[in-house]
Amino acid sequence: MFCRQQMFGTFVGRAKMRIGVIGGGQLARMMQPAAIALGLELKVLAEADNSSAHQAASMVGDYTDFETLQKFAKTVDVITFDHEHVPVEHLKKLEDSGVAVRPGSAALIHAQNKLTMRKAMQTLGLPQPAWREITSAEQLDHFIQEHGPAVVKTPIGGYDGKGVQVASKAADVASWLGSLDKYGGSLLAEQKVNFSRELSQLSARNELGDFVAWPLVQTVQRNGVCSEVIAPAPDSPAQSVATGIAKAVAEGLSVTGVMAVELFEDENGNLLINELAMRPHNSGHFSIEGSVTSQFEQHLRAVSNLPLGSTAMKSEYAVMVNLLGVDDTNTFVEHYQSAMQRFPEIKFHSYEKSARAGRKMGHLTTIGTDWQELLSKANEAREVLYRGGV
Amino acid sequence: MFCRQQMFGTFVGRAKMRIGVIGGGQLARMMQPAAIALGLELKVLAEADNSSAHQAASMVGDYTDFETLQKFAKTVDVITFDHEHVPVEHLKKLEDSGVAVRPGSAALIHAQNKLTMRKAMQTLGLPQPAWREITSAEQLDHFIQEHGPAVVKTPIGGYDGKGVQVASKAADVASWLGSLDKYGGSLLAEQKVNFSRELSQLSARNELGDFVAWPLVQTVQRNGVCSEVIAPAPDSPAQSVATGIAKAVAEGLSVTGVMAVELFEDENGNLLINELAMRPHNSGHFSIEGSVTSQFEQHLRAVSNLPLGSTAMKSEYAVMVNLLGVDDTNTFVEHYQSAMQRFPEIKFHSYEKSARAGRKMGHLTTIGTDWQELLSKANEAREVLYRGGV
Repeated sequence: MFCRQQMFGTFVGRAKMRIGVIGGGQLARMMQPAAIALGLELKVLAEADNSSAHQAASMVGDYTDFETLQKFAKTVDVITFDHEHVPVEHLKKLEDSGVAVRPGSAALIHAQNKLTMRKAMQTLGLPQPAWREITSAEQLDHFIQEHGPAVVKTPIGGYDGKGVQVASKAADVASWLGSLDKYGGSLLAEQKVNFSRELSQLSARNELGDFVAWPLVQTVQRNGVCSEVIAPAPDSPAQSVATGIAKAVAEGLSVTGVMAVELFEDENGNLLINELAMRPHNSGHFSIEGSVTSQFEQHLRAVSNLPLGSTAMKSEYAVMVNLLGVDDTNTFVEHYQSAMQRFPEIKFHSYEKSARAGRKMGHLTTIGTDWQELLSKANEAREVLYRGGV
Repeated sequence: MFCRQQMFGTFVGRAKMRIGVIGGGQLARMMQPAAIALGLELKVLAEADNSSAHQAASMVGDYTDFETLQKFAKTVDVITFDHEHVPVEHLKKLEDSGVAVRPGSAALIHAQNKLTMRKAMQTLGLPQPAWREITSAEQLDHFIQEHGPAVVKTPIGGYDGKGVQVASKAADVASWLGSLDKYGGSLLAEQKVNFSRELSQLSARNELGDFVAWPLVQTVQRNGVCSEVIAPAPDSPAQSVATGIAKAVAEGLSVTGVMAVELFEDENGNLLINELAMRPHNSGHFSIEGSVTSQFEQHLRAVSNLPLGSTAMKSEYAVMVNLLGVDDTNTFVEHYQSAMQRFPEIKFHSYEKSARAGRKMGHLTTIGTDWQELLSKANEAREVLYRGGV
């Protein structure tokens, strides 16, 4: 058994823990305020000079290049992530050389590879849609005959609706089937769930095994991208089930850091695991204003092996809406004047990204007691930022 | 009358407003998270390389040197402050050359010079202790005969108990009286108020005249330094009076930005103005977790001439306790492990300062419904950070 003080060894005696984040996106950006409050040092390996997290960027380089990762690792006490695209074989090599990587490569693979994830969930006996590993058109047609239209996914590299197609026959994904080598030799077919809604269970676990969960939240996707989050999910009877699933995943896969388990709620109220993310997640942005401990602070605590903070809500409900680019000029901040004038209670978050249609460029959060009213206000404020307004 | 869009002119058409803060202390540091969320650019003119706000420092230099200020001003759209020690004559020259300084020099002088402040409060007809400008021992003895023991202050340069002495006869401040030139030719004598408690009224005003106030809070000073803040002040009947005083000061002196009016509550429940601060203030740190809009975000909004945010409380009470240095080694972060383990609901703030007895090095905040319980928890957590613990 580990002694807490020993596990915290990298921190004791040093002025501050140096946390290295691979990726300079909005998740790294939103870790900054938490690092400033706690007095932890955040260093970011960014893809480019003008990244969202540019203020914390200590290096600019290619995260698929092992030597770059190795060089970055030497400047920090622990490595963690803004995204899940770092080659796990590189991370494994870093771990073998003594670098602390959290979550570790053995856990992270389940967030990178959807097929590996499905197999692990099955081994853990956790609820999920029917699925099959597909290596031929015949197999896929057979799966569709048995389960109806399938959601076909490339095992790696997909996100926000990319790398996902619905197929009612194998021919619908002929191009993927014709180049299986590009996807590791196989595809993943999942039964298309007739879900009544989508939910997300956010949790955190540190290396000592401490585990905490936030309330189960409802997510609303539009065109495959998260548009709105309501925390907690209204009329949700399933909190203990959702917490149980998250705990089983976190412990079963030895996850350290924040993890989101995306879930379907089917017509019978059953929860089925959709996807895993092992980092702060869009469905947890509400926690900046809505929770005693935000997912960003919690992630820093968890990967530093600090005790985890309270995940209690600070209000009955929190509602978050994403700001998605509408064109290549509107960065939304130019409409702050009208939006802030009309909505003094809404919190604005800009990721300082250049404008592009559909791009996640920021979000809005508001807290209170009536989630429908909060959602309606947040949507109105979003409209002002999208269209301008008086 | 100004059009809102016109007043906001510096921002429109620019990717982001560049806010320049003079001084790299904890107040500048705590503006960073708000700037990151809003996507505003924060630039800090710091005194030294290892300042508390070092991550946002764009220049290191002497704020008493006009050319340094001028050079810094060229890199930003508006100048504001972490502290009140910038010579007003320099700021006046910057304003004359077209630089936006907020609060302006004509307002700021009242936070720098306690004698100027007393005169202005008198002109505005606002409640304050009896006071007199002192240029001789005879005047001071006469004031003491009339009002009892006096609090004698140097008009400029005092803070956190420095530049303040209690005198029961002029001879008690003989050295000050003997070198009046150093203090601008006179001292300020104030009647020593038998206050029942100290309060602080935080507010914000932008250039358009929009004004908002947070709840009146109670502050507890120990050895002349703020130790604890309870927001709102328990059993406080005086909110509307306090808001009225703050509004009269903010409008009367054309203050832009956040302002704290420190108040005495006397035995009869009357409020008397003690001091003014024209910047985010220690008595407002509770607002980071406790308010819909923190004082730091509000200050950035106000000096950017953005509409002001809601100052509503997110919980019934918020309690903040300062972390004051206990010796020259304990920076408190080395005791996070035990403190966070015992107090998952407490929010930790480190200013990343080197340890020194008595120095303001951080603070703790906790929110909830029972202020006495919150205060007791916060004090226990502070003890763990001060003494270490299991």
